[in-house]
Amino acid sequence: MPGEASAPVVILVRPQLGENIGAVARAMMNTGLSELRLVAPRDGWPNPAAWPMASGAEVLLEEAALHENLEVAVGDLNRLYATTARDRDLVKWIATPRQAAADIRAATARGGRVGLLFGAERTGLTSDELAMADTLVTVPLNPDHASLNLAQAVLILGYEWWQAAEAGPALHLHHGGSEPAPLSQLTDFMTRLEHALEEEGFFRTPQQKPHMVRNLQSFFARGRPTEQEIRTLHGVVSALRGLRRKRD
Amino acid sequence: MPGEASAPVVILVRPQLGENIGAVARAMMNTGLSELRLVAPRDGWPNPAAWPMASGAEVLLEEAALHENLEVAVGDLNRLYATTARDRDLVKWIATPRQAAADIRAATARGGRVGLLFGAERTGLTSDELAMADTLVTVPLNPDHASLNLAQAVLILGYEWWQAAEAGPALHLHHGGSEPAPLSQLTDFMTRLEHALEEEGFFRTPQQKPHMVRNLQSFFARGRPTEQEIRTLHGVVSALRGLRRKRD
Repeated sequence: MPGEASAPVVILVRPQLGENIGAVARAMMNTGLSELRLVAPRDGWPNPAAWPMASGAEVLLEEAALHENLEVAVGDLNRLYATTARDRDLVKWIATPRQAAADIRAATARGGRVGLLFGAERTGLTSDELAMADTLVTVPLNPDHASLNLAQAVLILGYEWWQAAEAGPALHLHHGGSEPAPLSQLTDFMTRLEHALEEEGFFRTPQQKPHMVRNLQSFFARGRPTEQEIRTLHGVVSALRGLRRKRD
Repeated sequence: MPGEASAPVVILVRPQLGENIGAVARAMMNTGLSELRLVAPRDGWPNPAAWPMASGAEVLLEEAALHENLEVAVGDLNRLYATTARDRDLVKWIATPRQAAADIRAATARGGRVGLLFGAERTGLTSDELAMADTLVTVPLNPDHASLNLAQAVLILGYEWWQAAEAGPALHLHHGGSEPAPLSQLTDFMTRLEHALEEEGFFRTPQQKPHMVRNLQSFFARGRPTEQEIRTLHGVVSALRGLRRKRD
């Protein structure tokens, strides 16, 4: 039965119009998604403009969680799928909504929690935000006219997720029985790595740093590390920084 | 390549809000559908409220055809798929959008022309209108909250049609190389049959007639008759009415 606790969480980053947030709630309710998180909505929250568009999905608005930044909003999730209409220069897994839905069903069947990330109207997600996701989702559409509004993008992803319930377990990457770690662990690791690199003079100029950090973030997120792997990565950083040498 | 002349025609029956017609045009453009027909739009046509919602799909509004009734609007089409959220008492083929998309691709690959029929906001299609379709399409959604707005319903059907381009030819009913006849031929036959039945006293009371006509229409549309079969059906009616006897 879809619509249960394992359903993906919808995260709207910097949504602008309250009407669109309401329409997203309706599309979520249509497709059995029930948890909405808002990151820094432009007009604050709660926004009365959202309610008339929800058409029966008001409860999702009432229970929506408000966050100031994306890192906190997704810290408890194991995987993050980000929708984007544009090709980016990031090296990422790219999935259609159908492929993503099968993947999500397989992940949640093993107990993982998944987030679907949607950017602001018009501007979408920044490269830094996309870099946090482990998979980018691109909806196959008329390439000359591929722009969907926010609620339509949520509807297509939700519809595919709902449909995938009937398809049964999908092929999935084998993780040796271990799900990717909660994203907060990856964020902590990335923060540590960034500071370490800064201390080591890795970022030649301040101008280069954001781009380099983003590419690193994208690489590590793409690998979908497990908790064990993150421990290993920490060990690698410690080792490389010579902490082991100091202990000798 | 999707988006070509074989794309299904979208037919909106008694649409109410111009804004929704504009949003439908946008969803059509997103998914490579290019021909829009309007049957008796409530606020007349052209309706200036449609244009701001079209977001780049204005050309579809400019080229939209206006019809006074559904029979004329679909007369040149070979198959008609009608969307409905509710179960009806009609005996019909029922398809998901994905099944319908595969079916439509197979039909148009053999040269048939297909229509997608959408009813008015809130009220949907009447039973008489549904009876004209050979297949009903129901979108699998949360059964407690299955109501989509007009543009979202068009988007889902268009999205599946666009996606089906990549899936290759689907299994399909074998018609012996012959497509179902243009619907105008079926309508002519049904009109003749109805008059014949009336003359024969088939409809016991005026109250019963609409229901009985609808069920007959539904039955004949479900069979998707070819031109040869319609000729045969005419022959059957003639025969049953004793025209042959008179010639003897």
